[in-house]
Amino acid sequence: MKIARLSYQNNETYGFVNGDKVSTKDEITYLTGVPIPQNVKDFLFDGWYDEIKNKIKDLPYGENISKYKLLPPIPNPNKIICLAFNYVDHAKEQGLQAPEDPALVIKPRTALNGTNSDIVCPDFVTQLDYEVELAMIIGKNCKNVSVDDAFDSIFGYMVFNDVSARDIQFKDKQFTRGKSFDSFAPCGPWITTKDEIKDPQNLKMTTKINGELRQNSSSSNMFIKIPEIVSKISKVMTLEKGDIISTGTPAGVMLNKPNAVFLKDGDKVEMEIESLGILNNTIKVVKSN
Amino acid sequence: MKIARLSYQNNETYGFVNGDKVSTKDEITYLTGVPIPQNVKDFLFDGWYDEIKNKIKDLPYGENISKYKLLPPIPNPNKIICLAFNYVDHAKEQGLQAPEDPALVIKPRTALNGTNSDIVCPDFVTQLDYEVELAMIIGKNCKNVSVDDAFDSIFGYMVFNDVSARDIQFKDKQFTRGKSFDSFAPCGPWITTKDEIKDPQNLKMTTKINGELRQNSSSSNMFIKIPEIVSKISKVMTLEKGDIISTGTPAGVMLNKPNAVFLKDGDKVEMEIESLGILNNTIKVVKSN
Repeated sequence: MKIARLSYQNNETYGFVNGDKVSTKDEITYLTGVPIPQNVKDFLFDGWYDEIKNKIKDLPYGENISKYKLLPPIPNPNKIICLAFNYVDHAKEQGLQAPEDPALVIKPRTALNGTNSDIVCPDFVTQLDYEVELAMIIGKNCKNVSVDDAFDSIFGYMVFNDVSARDIQFKDKQFTRGKSFDSFAPCGPWITTKDEIKDPQNLKMTTKINGELRQNSSSSNMFIKIPEIVSKISKVMTLEKGDIISTGTPAGVMLNKPNAVFLKDGDKVEMEIESLGILNNTIKVVKSN
Repeated sequence: MKIARLSYQNNETYGFVNGDKVSTKDEITYLTGVPIPQNVKDFLFDGWYDEIKNKIKDLPYGENISKYKLLPPIPNPNKIICLAFNYVDHAKEQGLQAPEDPALVIKPRTALNGTNSDIVCPDFVTQLDYEVELAMIIGKNCKNVSVDDAFDSIFGYMVFNDVSARDIQFKDKQFTRGKSFDSFAPCGPWITTKDEIKDPQNLKMTTKINGELRQNSSSSNMFIKIPEIVSKISKVMTLEKGDIISTGTPAGVMLNKPNAVFLKDGDKVEMEIESLGILNNTIKVVKSN
């Protein structure tokens, strides 16, 4: 199932996506008789998905999804954890060795952004870069998860753009500030539940900038695989329902490239991961004050 | 005013501290007739402090504070932002230059810890270190705050220990993972409102380990001062009510010391900042699984 957060005339709801159609929470309640919760987090993490998934698969789907603005799929996650580096092809282009453990950066929730929105960048940032990443959404509170149990802790997946100001990253050495600007965590376009993804470790992933292919890889190129990521992070911190873990980016970013062309005002960023949909954003440079 | 989160027989409340006495929310409501909110965040950030501060200053204070367990003063903050490096004396001991901008690390809220609690450390961490820091609590949502307006955004201050696994910090190069273990963000013992602190940039701060003085400095030694910190961070991200910003640690930590003695099971960590109180924690090393 694909679950999207939706806004129509500033009223927020959520719905279930099928191709270019979507049925909202209220339509589903009407058609199934199951009073699913108002709040999408209650729906996602309190067992309602299992309750309705068989009831809704043959229902007629409602309106065209273009009627709605799509919001970041998880409102107010407790954590947005990003792997700083985790791809074989990215290691090759950057001259790095395989990591034994995941190096992490935490983004603030104020960085969240949805598809078809602007990535807003103050004009004092000089090296704005993109990173297509496969993100997972944690489905239950857990600590010290074994590799074997890791998939039980995952609710679903989405596309994530770990937008990064490289100039600030290098100046600070710590990557957090350069990755924490408001709007620097576009994700979505919706959550795809894990039962729809046969092998999350074998998904094609691409980035196009103004239509030009820049990243073209596969989630098979991760060094530390999804279950090991969940297990290793959960030995450090308690994971909570709705936490987002983004698993690193493959080759093709501008970081450390000799003839780097960084993102500029008006650039169109299109990221796609197989079976998870397309994330579209536009760069908007604003005057800083 | 000093506002503490309290627990008694697993019932949570909050109260107002005066010396070794505390009056709870319910006592204050009874004595003043003002029905202050159940939730401490509603009290702190919705104007109630101004409503009652003059009414409670001459009231008799209730019970001895030792009756209660003290909880981390802010429940579920949206962000815990730590400056990676910001003290003149710490720069001298580490051979570092003055930072132009604050290098940041974000800790997850799952790291929060109160006073008189254990800092729980898995046995795979080999270099556990302490960092006494002056933390501020943001009192209103704000973005692009000017230096002149910065103090308006601050609600109060508390002591913060930016507990750090140095071995993991060095291995990852990014500091986030080594600073993000559950219980690695002890803070408190309570919030002291800003009106009680004449000059937050001139407070003595110390760390004692098993009674031995290890850090002995002053908040006057910050490179980037409190208003600049708020202003600079708010040019990156929206600050929200209850966000915690911890402003870096002075000299005296074990990081990079040739004969470093890192923290071990049973060690007592006592941190004090002038006018803000004492934060006491004990190291507890646990077997990892």
